[in-house]
Amino acid sequence: MPTFSPVTPEIVSALEKIVGADYVVTTEPELLLYGRDETEDLQYRPEVAVRPASTDEISKIMALSHAHDIPVTPRGAGTGLSGGALPVFGGIVLSVDRMNAILEIDENNLMTRVQPGVITGVLQDTVAEKGLYYPPDPASNGSCMIGGNIAENSGGPHCVKYGLTKDYVLALEAVMPNGDVFRTGGKLRKDVAGYNLTQLLVGSEGTLAIVTEATLRLIPLPSYRRTVLAPFDDLDTAAKGIVAVYQSRITPAALEIVEKAAIEAAVEHLGRDVPHSNAEAQILLELDGTDEESLDRDLMKVGEVLLEVGAMDVMLADTPAKERELWSVRKCLGEAVKKQAAYVECDTAVPPDKVPDLLRGVREIAATHEIRQISYGHAGDGNIHVNVLTDDTDRAVREQKLQPAIEAIFELATGLGGTITGEHGVGCAQSRYLSLCRDPIAMAAMQGIKDAFDPKGLLNPGKVLPTEVPPPLPVAHV
Amino acid sequence: MPTFSPVTPEIVSALEKIVGADYVVTTEPELLLYGRDETEDLQYRPEVAVRPASTDEISKIMALSHAHDIPVTPRGAGTGLSGGALPVFGGIVLSVDRMNAILEIDENNLMTRVQPGVITGVLQDTVAEKGLYYPPDPASNGSCMIGGNIAENSGGPHCVKYGLTKDYVLALEAVMPNGDVFRTGGKLRKDVAGYNLTQLLVGSEGTLAIVTEATLRLIPLPSYRRTVLAPFDDLDTAAKGIVAVYQSRITPAALEIVEKAAIEAAVEHLGRDVPHSNAEAQILLELDGTDEESLDRDLMKVGEVLLEVGAMDVMLADTPAKERELWSVRKCLGEAVKKQAAYVECDTAVPPDKVPDLLRGVREIAATHEIRQISYGHAGDGNIHVNVLTDDTDRAVREQKLQPAIEAIFELATGLGGTITGEHGVGCAQSRYLSLCRDPIAMAAMQGIKDAFDPKGLLNPGKVLPTEVPPPLPVAHV
Repeated sequence: MPTFSPVTPEIVSALEKIVGADYVVTTEPELLLYGRDETEDLQYRPEVAVRPASTDEISKIMALSHAHDIPVTPRGAGTGLSGGALPVFGGIVLSVDRMNAILEIDENNLMTRVQPGVITGVLQDTVAEKGLYYPPDPASNGSCMIGGNIAENSGGPHCVKYGLTKDYVLALEAVMPNGDVFRTGGKLRKDVAGYNLTQLLVGSEGTLAIVTEATLRLIPLPSYRRTVLAPFDDLDTAAKGIVAVYQSRITPAALEIVEKAAIEAAVEHLGRDVPHSNAEAQILLELDGTDEESLDRDLMKVGEVLLEVGAMDVMLADTPAKERELWSVRKCLGEAVKKQAAYVECDTAVPPDKVPDLLRGVREIAATHEIRQISYGHAGDGNIHVNVLTDDTDRAVREQKLQPAIEAIFELATGLGGTITGEHGVGCAQSRYLSLCRDPIAMAAMQGIKDAFDPKGLLNPGKVLPTEVPPPLPVAHV
Repeated sequence: MPTFSPVTPEIVSALEKIVGADYVVTTEPELLLYGRDETEDLQYRPEVAVRPASTDEISKIMALSHAHDIPVTPRGAGTGLSGGALPVFGGIVLSVDRMNAILEIDENNLMTRVQPGVITGVLQDTVAEKGLYYPPDPASNGSCMIGGNIAENSGGPHCVKYGLTKDYVLALEAVMPNGDVFRTGGKLRKDVAGYNLTQLLVGSEGTLAIVTEATLRLIPLPSYRRTVLAPFDDLDTAAKGIVAVYQSRITPAALEIVEKAAIEAAVEHLGRDVPHSNAEAQILLELDGTDEESLDRDLMKVGEVLLEVGAMDVMLADTPAKERELWSVRKCLGEAVKKQAAYVECDTAVPPDKVPDLLRGVREIAATHEIRQISYGHAGDGNIHVNVLTDDTDRAVREQKLQPAIEAIFELATGLGGTITGEHGVGCAQSRYLSLCRDPIAMAAMQGIKDAFDPKGLLNPGKVLPTEVPPPLPVAHV
C-alpha cells in the first residue's frame, strides 16, 4: 500500500491562501460528505476538502500537494458508482463544483466550452433553448457534472444512437499532478496533431490530470420523439427483437431492457400494477428525428418487426404523458432497487447479441449463491446493470454472500466477450476485477502511462489499476 | 539524432526464418518502393523489408529487432501524406499487406473484425453487400489499408456527418515494440475498463505498437443520396452558406469547398469548362438517409438556405450520373494539383466558421511569397488542404521558396484556433511544426507515453514528435 504525507496545519493554511478560507473544509460532519459518493457502502474521510474557483488555483493546489507528497482526489458532484471520487488514502479532496460556468455556446460551429462543474442537465437545457443537443445522459444528469462525466466517460440510454461522452469531447484544458497546465485538441472535429491526449484523459477517472475546461461538440436537437414498449414472454425472443431492430436498419435513440425481477421491483416501488408486469422482459425503444413523417414510418416498422419476432404486444407513445408512462418502470429502477435491500450493482457490458446469455447466466448465479438479482439496462449496446441483493443486515455477512456472486457475474460477462464496466468506471470498487477483461501487457501499458503523468502517484491514488486500499469507514449518516 | 544498429546478414537470415525467404526483400529496386509513400519528394531506403502473415510473426520480428536495437517502420499501402511509413533511419520496414483478411462480419452486432492489410474500399464494398456501411473514406480508399487508417486516424469527406476512423474502432490487437501481444476493448460500444488504449493507439502513427487486428463498428447503409453544388461569388458568402446549413439543423453527409484557384486547376486537368468555373468558391453538399421523402425535403431546404444566403445558383443531383458530374471538379483535384507543378500539401484544419479567414490568409501568403496556392477540402469540419506550388525545378530552390510559405500557413491556421494536420498525420513531414498547436507540457506528456511504450525508441522513429532525421535521398524512379 502506498504511503503519503499527512495534511498539516501549514498545508491547510497554504490552501486557504490559494482558494480563500471560506472554501477550505476541515471540520466534520461536512468533511465526511467529501468522503463518499453514490457507490454502495463506501465511506472514506479526506483530511481536507478544497473548492477552487479557477485553473490557476487548481494549478497552485497541485504544485503544493506535489511538493509535499499529499494525495489529491478530484471530485465533481459525487454521483459516481465506482468510488472514483473517494479519498481512499485521505489527503485533499479537490471539488470543482464552483467552476460551473458555461463559457461559450458557439452556434456557428455547434460547440460549447464549459467548466468541469457544470451540471450535465443544466448544459442540456441551456443548449436545448438554442435548438442544440448534448446527448450523453447518465441517470444522474440532473446532478452530475461534466467533469465527472469526462473522468468516467459516462453513458446513458441515448448512447446507442449518439455515442458516449468521449464522442463529444473535442478539447480539454487540464492540470498535471505537478501543477503544470496544458491543452489538448481545439474547436476542431479533425485534429491528428500528435497522440490523442483528449481521448486518453476521457475515462481516465481523474488519475492522470484534472480537467479544468472542456470543448464539447453539440448536434441539432431532434424535433420529434416516439416511444415503444414491447413485452416478451421469454428472454431469447426479446433478444431476437433487439437483433431484429438492428437488422431493420433503424437506429433507435434508446433501446432498453427490463428483466422480470426488475419489473417486479418497479411494481412494488410504484405501488401499482403496470401493463404486462408478468412478462419475462420488456424492451423499451425510443426513436427520434427531425422529420415527423419519416419518424412515424420508422415507428410502424419497428412495431411490426417486434410483433413478427414474437412480442406479446407493442405499445406506442407519441405524447409526453404516454411517454412518461411507458418509461415509468425503467426510470424508477434505481430507486426501486435501493428500497429492496442492500445491493451491489455490477455494470456489465457484453456484445448486444449476448444479452440473453448474460441475463440467463445471472439468474443461475443468483440461484447458486442464494441471493437475489435485479437486471436492467441499455440492451442496445449490451450494457446491463446487474444488481445483486441480500437481506442480511450485517455488512460482513453481506459481503461474504455477495462477493462470490459478483465475481461469478464478472467472469460470466467477460467470458461472453464483455467488460466489467460499461459506463460506471473502475474506480476503487472494481479495480480488483480489471484483470478479468484486460491482459497483463495492456495493464502494464496503463501503469506506464500513469507513471509518465504522475510519477509520484499522488493523483486519485487507489483507482483504476489494482491497488490495495484501506478498508472503508462505517457509513456516516450526516 | 538517435543511432541504431545495422541490419546484418544474420538478422536477414533470422527474418527469413520467421516469415519465409519469399517475404523478405533485400534487393533494389524493390527495396526503394518500401522507402517512399505518397508524400511529395521524400525517398528513404530501408535495409530490409519483411511481409509477415500473422500476429505471431510480427511478435517475433519485434522481439528480434528489440534484442538487436534495430528500428522498425510499419507500413500499410504507403498512401500516407505525412511520411508516416518512411524508414527515415533505415532498419526494417514491416509491411502488413499480406494480413488482408476480413475475419468476420457480425451482422447481429453491426461490427466487423479485420486484419490491418484489408483495403478500406474492399471492406466498404464487402459490408455494403450486407446493407452495412463503414464511413471513413480517405481519398485513397481504393488502395489504402485499414491499418494505415488506424495509424493516422484517417478522415475523408463523410466525416462531417459520420466521424473519423477513431469513431469506428472498438477494439484492437497490437504488438508492443518488444514483441508482447495485447488486446484493447472488445465487441462493445461501451467499455470503460481502464485507460482507453484503443483511442490512444488510433492516430499514434505506428509509433507505440503495431496493430494486428481491429474490431470496427458498422452502421446501416443509407439508402438514398442527393448532391448539391452551389457557386458563390465571394468567400464570405460561401462561408455564410456553410454556417447557414449548420443552423438549418440538417447534417450533410459531406460539405466540401473548392476555391477559385482549385476550380481553375480542375478545368485545366479535365480539359473542359465546368458550370460556374468563374466562381470564387463552390460548395458541394451531399445528403443521405433511409427515407427518400424526408431526404428530398431536406434537399429543398438546403437549396433554399443556400440561395437565401446568396449562392449564385444551386444545382441538384439525384442520379449517379448527375452526382458524378457535380463531384467531378472536387474529385480530380488531387491529380490536378500534381499535374500543375511540384507542390506541398498543408493539411490545415480550423473551426469551420474560420474557413474564409484561412482561405483569404492563404491567398495573401501566396502573394507575399510569390508562390501559387490551390485550396480545397472538407469545409464542414474546417479541414482545408492548402497546396503550395512553385515552378522551380531545382529542389533546393523550391524548398527555399515554399518553406517560409508553409510555415506562414501553419501559423495562420493555428492562430485561427486550428491545427497543423486535420487528417494526414504528423509523420516526419510536419513534426517540426507540432509545437505551433501543442504546448510544451502536452508534448512532454506525449514523449512520456512514447517512452512508456517504446523505451528504446525503435518503433517508427523520427515520427510525430520533433526529431532530427537524415535528409531524404533523391527520388528514385523505379
